[in-house]
Amino acid sequence: MASAASTDREERVLQIIETARAKRPRFRDEQITLAHGAGGKATQTLIEGLLAPAFGIAELADAGVMENVAITSDSFVVKPLRFPGGSIGELAVNGTVNDLAMAGARPGAMTLAMILEEGLDADILRQEVDAVARAAAAAGVAVVGGDTKVVERGAADQMYLSSTGIGFIDPRAMLAPHKIRPGDQVLVSGPIGEHGTAIMLARNQFDLDAEIESDTCSLWPAVDALLEAVGAELHCLRDATRGGVASVLNELARAAGVAVVAREADVPVSPVVAAAAELLGIDPLYIANEGRLVAFVAPQTADRALEALRGVAGCEQAASIGEVRGDPPGMVLVQTSFGGRRVMDQLVGDPLPRIC
Amino acid sequence: MASAASTDREERVLQIIETARAKRPRFRDEQITLAHGAGGKATQTLIEGLLAPAFGIAELADAGVMENVAITSDSFVVKPLRFPGGSIGELAVNGTVNDLAMAGARPGAMTLAMILEEGLDADILRQEVDAVARAAAAAGVAVVGGDTKVVERGAADQMYLSSTGIGFIDPRAMLAPHKIRPGDQVLVSGPIGEHGTAIMLARNQFDLDAEIESDTCSLWPAVDALLEAVGAELHCLRDATRGGVASVLNELARAAGVAVVAREADVPVSPVVAAAAELLGIDPLYIANEGRLVAFVAPQTADRALEALRGVAGCEQAASIGEVRGDPPGMVLVQTSFGGRRVMDQLVGDPLPRIC
Repeated sequence: MASAASTDREERVLQIIETARAKRPRFRDEQITLAHGAGGKATQTLIEGLLAPAFGIAELADAGVMENVAITSDSFVVKPLRFPGGSIGELAVNGTVNDLAMAGARPGAMTLAMILEEGLDADILRQEVDAVARAAAAAGVAVVGGDTKVVERGAADQMYLSSTGIGFIDPRAMLAPHKIRPGDQVLVSGPIGEHGTAIMLARNQFDLDAEIESDTCSLWPAVDALLEAVGAELHCLRDATRGGVASVLNELARAAGVAVVAREADVPVSPVVAAAAELLGIDPLYIANEGRLVAFVAPQTADRALEALRGVAGCEQAASIGEVRGDPPGMVLVQTSFGGRRVMDQLVGDPLPRIC
Repeated sequence: MASAASTDREERVLQIIETARAKRPRFRDEQITLAHGAGGKATQTLIEGLLAPAFGIAELADAGVMENVAITSDSFVVKPLRFPGGSIGELAVNGTVNDLAMAGARPGAMTLAMILEEGLDADILRQEVDAVARAAAAAGVAVVGGDTKVVERGAADQMYLSSTGIGFIDPRAMLAPHKIRPGDQVLVSGPIGEHGTAIMLARNQFDLDAEIESDTCSLWPAVDALLEAVGAELHCLRDATRGGVASVLNELARAAGVAVVAREADVPVSPVVAAAAELLGIDPLYIANEGRLVAFVAPQTADRALEALRGVAGCEQAASIGEVRGDPPGMVLVQTSFGGRRVMDQLVGDPLPRIC
């Protein structure tokens, strides 16, 4: 099983390299902008046009895989540090755990590197260290190492965290973008856009009298349930973080050379998220999540997968939101509630910086 | 061999826990200061008084070990980004590679998380991505993943990097602080203090008409040579980064419950480093290195170890600088060139922030 998975990964790497070579954009920018960190087109250009060729890899994925070990790193610069439903410490754990889970790896251990601003209130540090410890315990990962740097006042905004996770590829998992096939069903694990909306409300950017909590959580239980229910019929997973579900669908449609048709009416969205999205003038499908996954499953097992997902705590509102088509390759289309169709493109710019 | 190594690690963990429990300081500070990032007493209090108990581990080591996999994370905030002999990109690779090497692990792969300031000149990013790629190739590690965040102008100082490495424990390595025994010889792999001095000169903090290059490099070739020459007679390794050789000796004397006597006259120091140290009023033994290790070896194999070390490119000036004694436990003493003795204590405060 391990060597089969390894062959599979080699295939995946070859596939990704081919795709990337065919379409690699050039990084021609003269200055870094917030958009380079937003998860949309500018981020893609930075990764595919600069980082990937420099490091000799097809793309800087959410998790790299060596033998059966998956490794992933993320930095967290969320503002404010604490928000309804979570804080930077929980994001640092769950974000890392989820990148492993999306690679089909059971999270094992993590490290935590902190950049602190001189003068930071030590109680804020205590709170976030505690948040990391609680989230790690909840996710079943051990914190095995770390690093602390302090920069002068004004050279950081309170605190930034970088976390790295390692995990071991689950033998049931055969996940890769190129496994996605026309006919595959697209599932989401719960209502979308709650993390981004919670951050917006916490910043008081709107005159909106509503409360919503971030969705930040470990997605390994959901992945475990999906693998148990449908095994290798689960074709690909992504957590819909920066850039939201729309960005995930675009990335995978492009990587797999397929089209995705999403049914707007089937996408679970809470009323608060819908209202905030309307105020901001953006589609909830572009709003960031920190505890929601998108799964591509073979059509004959989609019902079973959805049932398994709904049995996981926090995923009761999981839904089937669309399907994969052969044409037009690389495109994402939305079937609107009114029966029309529109293209759902990649995000350009950053409507909401420092979301995670 | 693997299971012997595993038992050895368990022993080491137990040993460290006992030591830490007996002496754990409390973290009572109200604000974070630059000293918390300097590698001395304040850092130790933060780690042992806050982080270690919160995460349920004995201490946040430079590299954590799970099964035979070692993992390590560091952030880099060096100022200026480029300096004679290197740049932040090279530090991010070599610092991570060296933490693995010190755990007896052959570096395998790394990830890179970047926090960029809005408005950063894209050419600076290009240079540093290139520096990472070149240093990774030189050290034989693959960059397998990463992350990019962008914060607003003024919320970071150009760029910060966090790198994480994973490596596999070399079966020849049986390294642990509690393996250090009275009689062990203390080796350093080359002249000390050059990285810290290069940074100081690059900042124009002195009116000193001299040039010196950072010592940043991968130390795996040195570790490989030592393991080949003396195997399990190599008892413990540390790279002497923040806080310098003095901090490493203090940390290990304390962890192993032994005394270390260093012979000042035998410590290799270049004239430029000696002059800069005199100007700053600090001992070169406290100045940071980014490519120098301290090795503890059994007395009967010390000559062989030193010869092997001197055969490695960049380690030609390796030297034996002291030895381990039984008493007084936890103390580091320096035999001065004049025949006297003084206590070489842990660093207090931070004479030179943002050195790495």
